[in-house]
Amino acid sequence: MSAIEKVAELATEAALVSSSASVLGWDQETYLPEEAHGWRARQLAWLSGRSHELSTSPALRDALEAALDEVDPSDQRSFGNLTEMKRRFERSTKLPAALVEKDSKLSSHAKHAWSEARKKSDFKLFAPHLQALLDLSREKAELWGYPDEAYDALIETYERGATTASISQVFDALGPDLRLIAAAAVERTALNPVALPDGPYPIEQQMAFNEEVARSFGFDFNKGRIDTTAHPFCTTLGPGDVRLTTRYDEGDFTSSLLGVMHEAGHGLYEQGLRSADFGTPAGDSVSLGIHESQSRLWENHVGRSRGFWEEWFPIAADHFPQLRKTDLDRFLAFIHRAEFSFIRVEADEATYDLHILLRFELERQLMRGDLKVADVPTAWNEAFTESFGVTPPDDAHGCLQDIHWAMGGLGYFPTYTIGNLNAAQLFKAAMQVDSISKGVSSADYSPLLKWLRKEIHDPGATLEPSELIRNASGREPSADAHLQHLRQRYTE
Amino acid sequence: MSAIEKVAELATEAALVSSSASVLGWDQETYLPEEAHGWRARQLAWLSGRSHELSTSPALRDALEAALDEVDPSDQRSFGNLTEMKRRFERSTKLPAALVEKDSKLSSHAKHAWSEARKKSDFKLFAPHLQALLDLSREKAELWGYPDEAYDALIETYERGATTASISQVFDALGPDLRLIAAAAVERTALNPVALPDGPYPIEQQMAFNEEVARSFGFDFNKGRIDTTAHPFCTTLGPGDVRLTTRYDEGDFTSSLLGVMHEAGHGLYEQGLRSADFGTPAGDSVSLGIHESQSRLWENHVGRSRGFWEEWFPIAADHFPQLRKTDLDRFLAFIHRAEFSFIRVEADEATYDLHILLRFELERQLMRGDLKVADVPTAWNEAFTESFGVTPPDDAHGCLQDIHWAMGGLGYFPTYTIGNLNAAQLFKAAMQVDSISKGVSSADYSPLLKWLRKEIHDPGATLEPSELIRNASGREPSADAHLQHLRQRYTE
Repeated sequence: MSAIEKVAELATEAALVSSSASVLGWDQETYLPEEAHGWRARQLAWLSGRSHELSTSPALRDALEAALDEVDPSDQRSFGNLTEMKRRFERSTKLPAALVEKDSKLSSHAKHAWSEARKKSDFKLFAPHLQALLDLSREKAELWGYPDEAYDALIETYERGATTASISQVFDALGPDLRLIAAAAVERTALNPVALPDGPYPIEQQMAFNEEVARSFGFDFNKGRIDTTAHPFCTTLGPGDVRLTTRYDEGDFTSSLLGVMHEAGHGLYEQGLRSADFGTPAGDSVSLGIHESQSRLWENHVGRSRGFWEEWFPIAADHFPQLRKTDLDRFLAFIHRAEFSFIRVEADEATYDLHILLRFELERQLMRGDLKVADVPTAWNEAFTESFGVTPPDDAHGCLQDIHWAMGGLGYFPTYTIGNLNAAQLFKAAMQVDSISKGVSSADYSPLLKWLRKEIHDPGATLEPSELIRNASGREPSADAHLQHLRQRYTE
Repeated sequence: MSAIEKVAELATEAALVSSSASVLGWDQETYLPEEAHGWRARQLAWLSGRSHELSTSPALRDALEAALDEVDPSDQRSFGNLTEMKRRFERSTKLPAALVEKDSKLSSHAKHAWSEARKKSDFKLFAPHLQALLDLSREKAELWGYPDEAYDALIETYERGATTASISQVFDALGPDLRLIAAAAVERTALNPVALPDGPYPIEQQMAFNEEVARSFGFDFNKGRIDTTAHPFCTTLGPGDVRLTTRYDEGDFTSSLLGVMHEAGHGLYEQGLRSADFGTPAGDSVSLGIHESQSRLWENHVGRSRGFWEEWFPIAADHFPQLRKTDLDRFLAFIHRAEFSFIRVEADEATYDLHILLRFELERQLMRGDLKVADVPTAWNEAFTESFGVTPPDDAHGCLQDIHWAMGGLGYFPTYTIGNLNAAQLFKAAMQVDSISKGVSSADYSPLLKWLRKEIHDPGATLEPSELIRNASGREPSADAHLQHLRQRYTE
């Protein structure tokens, strides 16, 4: 067996364990009985301990070093795979197994507590869990090391190559333009309010329609499924097993639909990675900012476009006959309405990034110690009021709305806006290909998917995120396309 | 830490792994996408390998031996727990880890192939898998050892204390009486045919009604749930996590309901075991013949009784208004109809055991080498025709109907009839307690459940199956109560 084959074998074993943990994690969010959370936390802690052992083993280190001697550096895919695996290996080995088990146990309990706290809108129920996770995040950051501030180390977890400073620079520049666009968009909607015809939009019909749309995007239901959870997500439980979730509102079918479009974007990326490379960077997503570019591209650039609804509005009306009471233009005005929403996942495109800027700022302050956990609700509400001009009525509509912190995911939020910028830049580049723009305007999304497969999915994590964007669009990553897109859709 | 505590700690770790595998197994039956079976089989093989390692480790052997020195033999529960753990340990250590992984992998693939084969009614698709599992069963039997014939070793897996000979003796004695009762019952139904009012019985209403019934039996939905599968089952994924499944027929709500009653009986047993002892025999079921006694007791002795339907028929009619077209007597005649069914899980009480006698005979012949795998369909159809007077139209209605062989479960089937005998004997004893018989006739099942908890559930596997029956009923285990019950319900 060559060293490269040995690496693949060891990586596969680690992937068997981590993907088993993903099955238990998915079940925890979808179907787990109330009183089973304690045992599930212990199961996940055991699995994550073993997964960490396997992905940080001396055997893997030796095999990796031998493989890096063996690989032909001109074989970009293999070389990129092994160098990225080495980088990940080194990062992982900085955390002792006991800390990884503690992390998993803490976040299992925290997720459960968060769910209760949100239900009761009682931040105090969640605060001790957030404090414990924050302390652990600081501990991890010190072990990983960072160029400038501890928060950098957390960002690196999700977005290879990004730092607090590099993100600040982009976000600070984006902020003023975003505020202007958002204010204009909100005013336009306020002047011409538009509502969806009254529900109910039966959940069974929503499920059927959502599935039809996801299928048309190219999501393969032989390799995945859609379930129901409090917070939509996409998770991969193995090659050929990509699971999306959404949540249903009987009064508004577009809520679950846009959730499915978004998660299907993630799912298409996962289904586009090479199965044979599962468990290694070559078969893995490269960063959350790239992942999110795929979900935003399908949700916003395809799913909210006029072209999309010209094709799909009549089909939607077959599922929901009350739509015949409205017309395409009014429906589009509804889809393109802008409002200052308290809830990030219900926010429209025009105001969405303001939610992220707020979270980025709070996380940075939390990590620097400039903000105490107990003060999060107040700080949240103050920052929200400043950005949006309204104050959340309770913490369930404020700092308790997202699951991310409960998952120990500090540093995760900024990647949503990075994803928005990437999505706009990629979609603009793709639409310059004739077959793609023709396809998109006639509900044939296969040329677009084929392009994304080649440019973004197939390389896995063998290239840097910025390289992928540069190769696909022929330009440096920037906010230009995103701002142009928002201005066009929301202010013209 | 005492040796007894050390044993508990090691047993808990093994239980964390085996119960993680149970989560993946449950998901495989309920929600797994089509193309994910290969990877799932590999995940399960890895987990079952680790689980086997942990439950056969030298550390556990040492701790067990020290604990057996430490334990006070007059402490029956602790002593029974440790001696049974030792027995299981010795049995497990006879199988090498590689064989256990192979077993898991084979049966994962076989279950998938069986599902396809049944769909297409094509035994050839399943035959090579059955052959492989049969070969492996023989290999396991040789490693375990047996008193008389290899099949004994398989039976021992499911029914501590039983052998091929002891079961033959009971079954041979039962056979003639069963055939007479079944024939009389089938004739009675044929002379007075009765049908349920036409469907549809909407699946959503079936789910709601089934849940109401399971709840009234005492099934705790904070510690469990009900899902949908091709073949109903009950599985425990951890303390506080007991999952039942059933399947739905829009034309007959009693099909899913009786499935739920049956699986809820299993589930009540699992929920009645002590959580603190999870992973050790004291917190584990003792045998399948005892397990099945619980499902049969709730399904047949409670759920099919006149007393039950006097209370529940009006409630059922609220869910399914078409029931108002019939009355209690005609409905009971429907519930008590007897027909020669091709499908075991759809068989009525009067004919059910004949299905088991047939399978027991074929398994014995397969294990002895008197029957070749390729000849199973022919042998099945001949034996079926002899017992039931009709020939299965295809293998989906014959030898492909059950999942058990695909799970490598040779030796499992006889425990169904053992369970029927136990159920009748236990129910008869329980009904001699005044509060229980009063409760049962007024839809208050808590006195019955309390009695079962004390007599059967709480001891876990610290006593032998026959001891449990003897202690609870004050009699030696026998077929008397079962035959009496069948005669009364089906021939009088």
